[in-house]
Amino acid sequence: MKKIWMILLVAVSFLISDTEFADPKPSIENPRQFVFPITSDDEYEISHVLSSASNVMKFYGPEKCEVAIVCYSKGIKAVMKEANFFDKTLQKRLKSLMTYDVEFIACGNTMKTYNIDKKELLDGVDVVTAGIVELIERQIGGWIYIRP
Amino acid sequence: MKKIWMILLVAVSFLISDTEFADPKPSIENPRQFVFPITSDDEYEISHVLSSASNVMKFYGPEKCEVAIVCYSKGIKAVMKEANFFDKTLQKRLKSLMTYDVEFIACGNTMKTYNIDKKELLDGVDVVTAGIVELIERQIGGWIYIRP
Amino acid sequence: MKKIWMILLVAVSFLISDTEFADPKPSIENPRQFVFPITSDDEYEISHVLSSASNVMKFYGPEKCEVAIVCYSKGIKAVMKEANFFDKTLQKRLKSLMTYDVEFIACGNTMKTYNIDKKELLDGVDVVTAGIVELIERQIGGWIYIRP
Repeated sequence: MKKIWMILLVAVSFLISDTEFADPKPSIENPRQFVFPITSDDEYEISHVLSSASNVMKFYGPEKCEVAIVCYSKGIKAVMKEANFFDKTLQKRLKSLMTYDVEFIACGNTMKTYNIDKKELLDGVDVVTAGIVELIERQIGGWIYIRP
Repeated sequence: MKKIWMILLVAVSFLISDTEFADPKPSIENPRQFVFPITSDDEYEISHVLSSASNVMKFYGPEKCEVAIVCYSKGIKAVMKEANFFDKTLQKRLKSLMTYDVEFIACGNTMKTYNIDKKELLDGVDVVTAGIVELIERQIGGWIYIRP
Repeated sequence: MKKIWMILLVAVSFLISDTEFADPKPSIENPRQFVFPITSDDEYEISHVLSSASNVMKFYGPEKCEVAIVCYSKGIKAVMKEANFFDKTLQKRLKSLMTYDVEFIACGNTMKTYNIDKKELLDGVDVVTAGIVELIERQIGGWIYIRP
Protein backbone atom coordinates (compact mmCIF):
# COMPACT_ATOMS: atom_id res chain seq x y z
CA MET A 1 0.00 0.00 0.00
CA LYS A 2 2.74 2.40 0.99
CA LYS A 3 4.43 1.62 -2.31
CA ILE A 4 1.34 2.58 -4.31
CA TRP A 5 1.22 5.94 -2.54
CA MET A 6 4.88 6.47 -3.31
CA ILE A 7 4.29 5.72 -6.98
CA LEU A 8 1.30 8.05 -7.05
CA LEU A 9 3.30 10.79 -5.38
CA VAL A 10 6.13 10.43 -7.85
CA ALA A 11 3.66 10.43 -10.74
CA VAL A 12 2.01 13.58 -9.42
CA SER A 13 5.33 15.31 -8.88
CA PHE A 14 6.18 14.56 -12.51
CA LEU A 15 2.88 16.04 -13.63
CA ILE A 16 3.23 19.26 -11.68
CA SER A 17 6.79 19.79 -12.89
CA ASP A 18 5.45 20.33 -16.40
CA THR A 19 4.52 23.67 -17.90
CA GLU A 20 1.44 25.18 -16.26
CA PHE A 21 -1.05 26.95 -18.47
CA ALA A 22 -1.31 30.66 -17.83
CA ASP A 23 -4.73 32.31 -17.73
CA PRO A 24 -6.75 32.44 -19.90
CA LYS A 25 -6.38 28.73 -20.55
CA PRO A 26 -6.18 27.72 -24.22
CA SER A 27 -9.48 26.50 -25.65
CA ILE A 28 -11.21 26.08 -29.02
CA GLU A 29 -13.00 29.42 -28.48
CA ASN A 30 -9.85 31.11 -27.25
CA PRO A 31 -6.89 29.45 -28.99
CA ARG A 32 -3.27 30.35 -28.35
CA GLN A 33 -1.87 32.36 -31.25
CA PHE A 34 1.82 32.17 -32.14
CA VAL A 35 3.89 33.89 -34.75
CA PHE A 36 7.38 32.60 -35.57
CA PRO A 37 9.96 34.15 -37.90
CA ILE A 38 12.21 32.31 -40.35
CA THR A 39 15.10 34.61 -41.23
CA SER A 40 17.85 32.17 -42.14
CA ASP A 41 18.41 29.97 -45.20
CA ASP A 42 20.21 27.44 -43.03
CA GLU A 43 18.38 24.11 -43.24
CA TYR A 44 18.93 23.29 -39.59
CA GLU A 45 17.32 26.61 -38.60
CA ILE A 46 14.37 26.15 -40.95
CA SER A 47 13.87 22.59 -39.76
CA HIS A 48 14.00 23.81 -36.16
CA VAL A 49 11.20 26.34 -36.73
CA LEU A 50 9.04 23.71 -38.46
CA SER A 51 9.62 21.29 -35.58
CA SER A 52 8.71 23.99 -33.09
CA ALA A 53 5.45 24.58 -34.93
CA SER A 54 4.72 20.84 -34.86
CA ASN A 55 5.59 20.61 -31.18
CA VAL A 56 3.27 23.42 -30.08
CA MET A 57 0.43 21.98 -32.16
CA LYS A 58 0.97 18.56 -30.59
CA PHE A 59 1.03 20.08 -27.11
CA TYR A 60 -2.03 22.32 -27.35
CA GLY A 61 -3.92 20.33 -29.95
CA PRO A 62 -4.27 21.82 -33.43
CA GLU A 63 -7.77 23.13 -32.64
CA LYS A 64 -6.52 25.11 -29.64
CA CYS A 65 -3.79 27.08 -31.37
CA GLU A 66 -3.13 29.16 -34.46
CA VAL A 67 0.35 29.34 -35.94
CA ALA A 68 1.73 31.83 -38.44
CA ILE A 69 5.27 31.69 -39.81
CA VAL A 70 6.72 34.85 -41.38
CA CYS A 71 9.60 34.29 -43.82
CA TYR A 72 11.88 37.22 -44.59
CA SER A 73 15.47 38.11 -45.33
CA LYS A 74 17.36 34.90 -46.22
CA GLY A 75 14.47 32.95 -44.68
CA ILE A 76 12.41 33.56 -47.84
CA LYS A 77 14.12 30.43 -49.20
CA ALA A 78 11.89 28.31 -46.96
CA VAL A 79 8.80 29.07 -49.06
CA MET A 80 10.35 29.00 -52.55
CA LYS A 81 9.33 26.22 -54.95
CA GLU A 82 12.83 25.65 -56.25
CA ALA A 83 14.74 25.81 -52.97
CA ASN A 84 17.73 23.50 -53.24
CA PHE A 85 17.40 21.76 -49.91
CA PHE A 86 19.80 18.96 -49.17
CA ASP A 87 17.08 17.57 -46.88
CA LYS A 88 14.31 16.65 -49.31
CA THR A 89 11.74 16.14 -46.54
CA LEU A 90 11.85 19.82 -45.51
CA GLN A 91 9.38 21.02 -48.12
CA LYS A 92 7.10 18.05 -47.45
CA ARG A 93 7.00 18.90 -43.75
CA LEU A 94 6.21 22.53 -44.57
CA LYS A 95 3.35 21.55 -46.89
CA SER A 96 2.06 19.15 -44.25
CA LEU A 97 1.91 22.04 -41.75
CA MET A 98 -0.10 24.01 -44.32
CA THR A 99 -2.74 21.27 -44.36
CA TYR A 100 -3.08 21.91 -40.61
CA ASP A 101 -3.82 25.58 -41.38
CA VAL A 102 -0.41 26.91 -40.41
CA GLU A 103 -0.08 30.22 -42.27
CA PHE A 104 3.09 30.90 -44.24
CA ILE A 105 3.72 34.55 -45.00
CA ALA A 106 6.42 35.97 -47.27
CA CYS A 107 7.92 39.46 -46.99
CA GLY A 108 7.37 41.66 -50.04
CA ASN A 109 10.40 43.84 -49.25
CA THR A 110 12.60 40.76 -49.27
CA MET A 111 11.09 39.64 -52.59
CA LYS A 112 11.94 43.03 -54.10
CA THR A 113 15.50 42.88 -52.77
CA TYR A 114 16.12 39.39 -54.14
CA ASN A 115 13.98 39.95 -57.28
CA ILE A 116 11.60 37.09 -56.48
CA ASP A 117 8.22 36.80 -58.18
CA LYS A 118 5.09 35.58 -56.35
CA LYS A 119 4.84 32.62 -58.74
CA GLU A 120 8.22 31.38 -57.50
CA LEU A 121 6.65 30.88 -54.06
CA LEU A 122 4.87 27.74 -52.95
CA ASP A 123 1.11 27.76 -53.54
CA GLY A 124 -0.79 28.98 -50.52
CA VAL A 125 1.89 31.37 -49.29
CA ASP A 126 0.60 34.87 -48.53
CA VAL A 127 2.62 37.97 -49.34
CA VAL A 128 2.68 41.11 -47.18
CA THR A 129 4.52 44.38 -47.79
CA ALA A 130 6.94 43.98 -44.87
CA GLY A 131 7.50 40.81 -42.85
CA ILE A 132 8.61 42.70 -39.79
CA VAL A 133 5.42 44.80 -39.78
CA GLU A 134 3.38 41.58 -39.83
CA LEU A 135 5.27 40.38 -36.73
CA ILE A 136 4.69 43.71 -35.01
CA GLU A 137 0.96 44.00 -35.75
CA ARG A 138 0.28 40.39 -34.77
CA GLN A 139 2.01 41.03 -31.43
CA ILE A 140 -0.06 44.14 -30.80
CA GLY A 141 -3.12 42.06 -31.69
CA GLY A 142 -2.25 39.57 -28.94
CA TRP A 143 -0.21 36.95 -30.76
CA ILE A 144 2.82 35.57 -28.97
CA TYR A 145 6.09 36.17 -30.81
CA ILE A 146 8.84 33.64 -30.25
CA ARG A 147 12.04 33.19 -32.20
CA PRO A 148 12.39 29.42 -31.94
CA MET B 1 -18.39 45.40 -67.25
CA LYS B 2 -17.81 41.96 -65.84
CA LYS B 3 -14.10 42.47 -66.45
CA ILE B 4 -14.02 45.65 -64.38
CA TRP B 5 -15.60 43.84 -61.47
CA MET B 6 -13.04 41.09 -61.80
CA ILE B 7 -10.21 43.61 -61.76
CA LEU B 8 -11.72 45.35 -58.75
CA LEU B 9 -12.11 42.04 -56.95
CA VAL B 10 -8.53 41.08 -57.64
CA ALA B 11 -7.34 44.52 -56.52
CA VAL B 12 -9.33 44.25 -53.27
CA SER B 13 -8.10 40.72 -52.60
CA PHE B 14 -4.54 42.05 -52.93
CA LEU B 15 -5.28 44.85 -50.50
CA ILE B 16 -6.78 42.60 -47.83
CA SER B 17 -3.92 40.14 -48.10
CA ASP B 18 -1.58 42.78 -46.65
CA THR B 19 -0.90 43.24 -42.95
CA GLU B 20 -3.92 44.57 -41.07
CA PHE B 21 -3.33 47.12 -38.35
CA ALA B 22 -4.16 45.89 -34.88
CA ASP B 23 -6.03 48.17 -32.46
CA PRO B 24 -5.19 50.82 -31.43
CA LYS B 25 -4.26 51.97 -34.94
CA PRO B 26 -0.95 53.81 -35.23
CA SER B 27 -1.31 57.61 -35.29
CA ILE B 28 0.73 60.72 -34.63
CA GLU B 29 -0.75 60.91 -31.10
CA ASN B 30 -0.30 57.20 -30.52
CA PRO B 31 2.75 56.09 -32.50
CA ARG B 32 3.96 52.51 -32.70
CA GLN B 33 7.08 52.07 -30.57
CA PHE B 34 9.72 49.50 -31.49
CA VAL B 35 12.95 48.46 -29.90
CA PHE B 36 15.44 46.35 -31.84
CA PRO B 37 18.69 44.81 -30.56
CA ILE B 38 22.01 44.67 -32.40
CA THR B 39 24.12 41.95 -30.78
CA SER B 40 26.40 40.87 -33.61
CA ASP B 41 29.41 42.53 -35.26
CA ASP B 42 28.55 40.81 -38.52
CA GLU B 43 27.95 43.46 -41.20
CA TYR B 44 25.11 41.55 -42.80
CA GLU B 45 23.30 41.39 -39.44
CA ILE B 46 23.87 45.07 -38.69
CA SER B 47 22.74 46.03 -42.18
CA HIS B 48 19.64 43.87 -41.74
CA VAL B 49 18.62 45.68 -38.51
CA LEU B 50 19.14 49.09 -40.14
CA SER B 51 17.04 48.01 -43.15
CA SER B 52 14.33 46.76 -40.81
CA ALA B 53 14.26 50.14 -39.07
CA SER B 54 13.98 51.89 -42.47
CA ASN B 55 11.24 49.52 -43.60
CA VAL B 56 9.03 50.04 -40.56
CA MET B 57 9.46 53.81 -40.83
CA LYS B 58 8.50 53.70 -44.51
CA PHE B 59 5.47 51.55 -43.74
CA TYR B 60 4.04 53.49 -40.80
CA GLY B 61 5.43 56.90 -41.73
CA PRO B 62 8.20 58.35 -39.57
CA GLU B 63 5.71 60.48 -37.61
CA LYS B 64 3.66 57.42 -36.59
CA CYS B 65 6.45 55.36 -35.08
CA GLU B 66 9.37 55.61 -32.68
CA VAL B 67 12.38 53.37 -33.10
CA ALA B 68 15.13 52.61 -30.60
CA ILE B 69 18.11 50.35 -31.35
CA VAL B 70 20.05 48.90 -28.42
CA CYS B 71 23.63 47.81 -29.20
CA TYR B 72 25.30 45.37 -26.85
CA SER B 73 27.71 42.46 -26.77
CA LYS B 74 29.55 42.32 -30.11
CA GLY B 75 26.86 44.62 -31.53
CA ILE B 76 28.53 47.61 -29.84
CA LYS B 77 30.70 47.78 -32.97
CA ALA B 78 27.73 49.25 -34.87
CA VAL B 79 27.96 52.55 -32.97
CA MET B 80 31.75 52.93 -32.76
CA LYS B 81 33.42 55.75 -34.67
CA GLU B 82 36.32 53.64 -35.86
CA ALA B 83 34.44 50.49 -36.83
CA ASN B 84 36.27 48.86 -39.72
CA PHE B 85 33.30 48.11 -41.90
CA PHE B 86 33.99 46.68 -45.31
CA ASP B 87 30.70 48.29 -46.40
CA LYS B 88 31.44 51.99 -46.10
CA THR B 89 27.77 52.97 -46.47
CA LEU B 90 26.80 51.24 -43.21
CA GLN B 91 27.76 54.14 -40.94
CA LYS B 92 26.15 56.65 -43.31
CA ARG B 93 22.88 54.72 -43.19
CA LEU B 94 23.05 54.65 -39.39
CA LYS B 95 23.66 58.40 -39.17
CA SER B 96 20.82 58.99 -41.62
CA LEU B 97 18.46 57.05 -39.32
CA MET B 98 19.60 59.29 -36.45
CA THR B 99 18.43 62.35 -38.39
CA TYR B 100 14.98 60.67 -38.41
CA ASP B 101 15.14 60.51 -34.59
CA VAL B 102 15.95 56.81 -34.36
CA GLU B 103 17.60 56.40 -30.94
CA PHE B 104 20.85 54.47 -30.72
CA ILE B 105 21.68 53.17 -27.26
CA ALA B 106 24.94 51.54 -26.16
CA CYS B 107 25.29 49.06 -23.28
CA GLY B 108 27.57 50.26 -20.46
CA ASN B 109 28.30 46.70 -19.30
CA THR B 110 29.56 45.86 -22.78
CA MET B 111 31.72 49.00 -22.83
CA LYS B 112 33.31 47.94 -19.53
CA THR B 113 33.94 44.42 -20.82
CA TYR B 114 35.59 45.63 -24.02
CA ASN B 115 37.19 48.69 -22.37
CA ILE B 116 35.44 51.19 -24.63
CA ASP B 117 35.22 54.86 -23.73
CA LYS B 118 32.13 56.98 -24.46
CA LYS B 119 34.19 59.22 -26.75
CA GLU B 120 34.85 56.24 -29.02
CA LEU B 121 31.12 56.09 -29.75
CA LEU B 122 29.39 58.04 -32.51
CA ASP B 123 28.02 61.41 -31.43
CA GLY B 124 24.40 61.20 -30.36
CA VAL B 125 24.60 57.65 -29.02
CA ASP B 126 23.16 57.29 -25.50
CA VAL B 127 24.74 55.02 -22.90
CA VAL B 128 22.77 52.99 -20.36
CA THR B 129 24.07 50.72 -17.59
CA ALA B 130 22.78 47.50 -19.14
CA GLY B 131 21.45 47.09 -22.68
CA ILE B 132 19.28 44.15 -21.74
CA VAL B 133 17.59 46.12 -18.97
CA GLU B 134 16.75 48.84 -21.49
CA LEU B 135 15.07 46.21 -23.70
CA ILE B 136 13.15 44.86 -20.72
CA GLU B 137 11.91 48.19 -19.37
CA ARG B 138 10.88 49.42 -22.81
CA GLN B 139 8.83 46.25 -23.29
CA ILE B 140 7.12 46.71 -19.93
CA GLY B 141 6.44 50.30 -20.97
CA GLY B 142 4.60 49.08 -24.06
CA TRP B 143 7.31 49.06 -26.71
CA ILE B 144 7.35 46.14 -29.14
CA TYR B 145 10.55 44.09 -29.03
CA ILE B 146 11.54 42.34 -32.22
CA ARG B 147 14.84 40.73 -33.08
CA PRO B 148 14.95 41.52 -36.80
CA MET C 1 30.00 78.40 -7.43
CA LYS C 2 29.08 78.34 -11.12
CA LYS C 3 31.40 75.36 -11.52
CA ILE C 4 29.56 73.39 -8.83
CA TRP C 5 26.28 73.95 -10.62
CA MET C 6 27.86 72.81 -13.85
CA ILE C 7 29.14 69.64 -12.21
CA LEU C 8 25.73 68.99 -10.66
CA LEU C 9 24.02 69.54 -13.99
CA VAL C 10 26.37 67.15 -15.73
CA ALA C 11 25.88 64.58 -12.95
CA VAL C 12 22.10 64.88 -13.23
CA SER C 13 22.19 64.60 -17.02
CA PHE C 14 24.19 61.38 -16.63
CA LEU C 15 21.63 60.01 -14.19
CA ILE C 16 18.63 60.71 -16.38
CA SER C 17 20.31 59.21 -19.42
CA ASP C 18 20.11 55.77 -17.79
CA THR C 19 17.23 53.35 -18.25
CA GLU C 20 14.04 54.55 -16.60
CA PHE C 21 11.88 52.01 -14.84
CA ALA C 22 8.51 51.47 -16.47
CA ASP C 23 5.40 51.19 -14.30
CA PRO C 24 4.80 49.18 -12.20
CA LYS C 25 8.25 49.69 -10.67
CA PRO C 26 10.09 46.51 -9.67
CA SER C 27 9.81 45.67 -5.98
CA ILE C 28 10.12 42.68 -3.65
CA GLU C 29 6.32 42.21 -3.77
CA ASN C 30 6.19 42.73 -7.51
CA PRO C 31 9.48 41.47 -8.95
CA ARG C 32 10.40 41.65 -12.62
CA GLN C 33 10.15 38.21 -14.22
CA PHE C 34 12.38 37.26 -17.14
CA VAL C 35 12.64 34.15 -19.24
CA PHE C 36 15.67 33.64 -21.49
CA PRO C 37 16.25 30.83 -24.01
CA ILE C 38 19.50 28.99 -24.62
CA THR C 39 19.27 27.32 -28.05
CA SER C 40 22.90 27.10 -29.11
CA ASP C 41 25.76 24.84 -27.98
CA ASP C 42 28.22 27.61 -28.77
CA GLU C 43 30.13 28.53 -25.60
CA TYR C 44 30.17 32.22 -26.40
CA GLU C 45 26.37 32.21 -26.75
CA ILE C 46 25.84 30.25 -23.53
CA SER C 47 28.25 32.50 -21.66
CA HIS C 48 26.41 35.54 -23.03
CA VAL C 49 23.04 34.34 -21.67
CA LEU C 50 24.58 33.59 -18.25
CA SER C 51 26.16 37.06 -18.19
CA SER C 52 22.85 38.61 -19.14
CA ALA C 53 21.17 36.82 -16.23
CA SER C 54 23.90 38.08 -13.86
CA ASN C 55 23.60 41.61 -15.22
CA VAL C 56 19.85 41.88 -14.74
CA MET C 57 20.14 40.47 -11.20
CA LYS C 58 22.84 43.01 -10.38
CA PHE C 59 20.75 45.83 -11.81
CA TYR C 60 17.42 45.05 -10.16
CA GLY C 61 18.76 43.29 -7.10
CA PRO C 62 18.22 39.52 -6.83
CA GLU C 63 15.18 40.01 -4.57
CA LYS C 64 13.43 42.20 -7.14
CA CYS C 65 13.59 39.81 -10.07
CA GLU C 66 12.98 36.21 -11.02
CA VAL C 67 14.93 34.60 -13.82
CA ALA C 68 14.17 31.39 -15.70
CA ILE C 69 16.41 29.98 -18.45
CA VAL C 70 14.91 27.46 -20.87
CA CYS C 71 17.41 25.19 -22.64
CA TYR C 72 16.33 23.47 -25.83
CA SER C 73 17.57 22.33 -29.21
CA LYS C 74 21.39 22.40 -29.18
CA GLY C 75 21.19 24.58 -26.04
CA ILE C 76 20.44 21.48 -23.96
CA LYS C 77 24.23 21.09 -23.73
CA ALA C 78 24.32 23.96 -21.24
CA VAL C 79 22.65 21.86 -18.52
CA MET C 80 24.35 18.51 -19.15
CA LYS C 81 26.74 17.14 -16.52
CA GLU C 82 29.30 15.93 -19.03
CA ALA C 83 29.31 18.91 -21.38
CA ASN C 84 32.78 19.24 -22.86
CA PHE C 85 33.22 22.94 -22.38
CA PHE C 86 36.56 24.41 -23.28
CA ASP C 87 35.80 27.15 -20.73
CA LYS C 88 35.76 25.25 -17.43
CA THR C 89 34.20 28.15 -15.52
CA LEU C 90 30.97 27.99 -17.53
CA GLN C 91 29.37 25.24 -15.45
CA LYS C 92 30.50 26.91 -12.23
CA ARG C 93 28.84 30.15 -13.25
CA LEU C 94 25.65 28.29 -14.10
CA LYS C 95 25.61 26.52 -10.72
CA SER C 96 26.29 29.81 -8.99
CA LEU C 97 23.20 31.30 -10.68
CA MET C 98 21.19 28.32 -9.37
CA THR C 99 22.16 29.25 -5.80
CA TYR C 100 20.52 32.63 -6.53
CA ASP C 101 17.30 30.78 -7.46
CA VAL C 102 17.67 31.16 -11.20
CA GLU C 103 15.56 28.33 -12.66
CA PHE C 104 17.07 26.12 -15.35
CA ILE C 105 14.54 24.24 -17.45
CA ALA C 106 15.28 21.52 -20.01
CA CYS C 107 13.09 20.66 -23.00
CA GLY C 108 11.74 17.09 -22.96
CA ASN C 109 11.26 17.03 -26.74
CA THR C 110 14.92 17.88 -27.21
CA MET C 111 15.92 15.15 -24.75
CA LYS C 112 13.91 12.61 -26.78
CA THR C 113 15.49 13.79 -30.05
CA TYR C 114 19.03 13.53 -28.69
CA ASN C 115 18.28 10.49 -26.52
CA ILE C 116 19.25 12.22 -23.28
CA ASP C 117 18.21 10.84 -19.88
CA LYS C 118 17.21 13.08 -16.97
CA LYS C 119 20.13 11.76 -14.90
CA GLU C 120 22.55 13.18 -17.48
CA LEU C 121 21.31 16.66 -16.55
CA LEU C 122 22.76 18.77 -13.76
CA ASP C 123 21.00 18.36 -10.41
CA GLY C 124 18.28 20.93 -9.91
CA VAL C 125 17.35 21.24 -13.57
CA ASP C 126 13.60 20.91 -14.24
CA VAL C 127 12.23 19.09 -17.26
CA VAL C 128 9.13 20.15 -19.19
CA THR C 129 7.50 18.51 -22.20
CA ALA C 130 8.32 21.31 -24.65
CA GLY C 131 10.72 24.18 -24.03
CA ILE C 132 8.95 26.46 -26.46
CA VAL C 133 5.62 25.95 -24.68
CA GLU C 134 7.27 26.98 -21.41
CA LEU C 135 8.46 30.21 -23.07
CA ILE C 136 4.97 30.84 -24.45
CA GLU C 137 3.04 30.20 -21.23
CA ARG C 138 5.44 32.29 -19.14
CA GLN C 139 4.96 35.18 -21.57
CA ILE C 140 1.18 34.89 -21.35
CA GLY C 141 1.59 34.82 -17.56
CA GLY C 142 3.39 38.17 -17.68
CA TRP C 143 7.05 37.17 -17.87
CA ILE C 144 9.28 39.17 -20.19
CA TYR C 145 10.87 37.10 -22.96
CA ILE C 146 14.20 38.30 -24.26
CA ARG C 147 16.66 36.46 -26.46
CA PRO C 148 19.89 37.88 -25.05
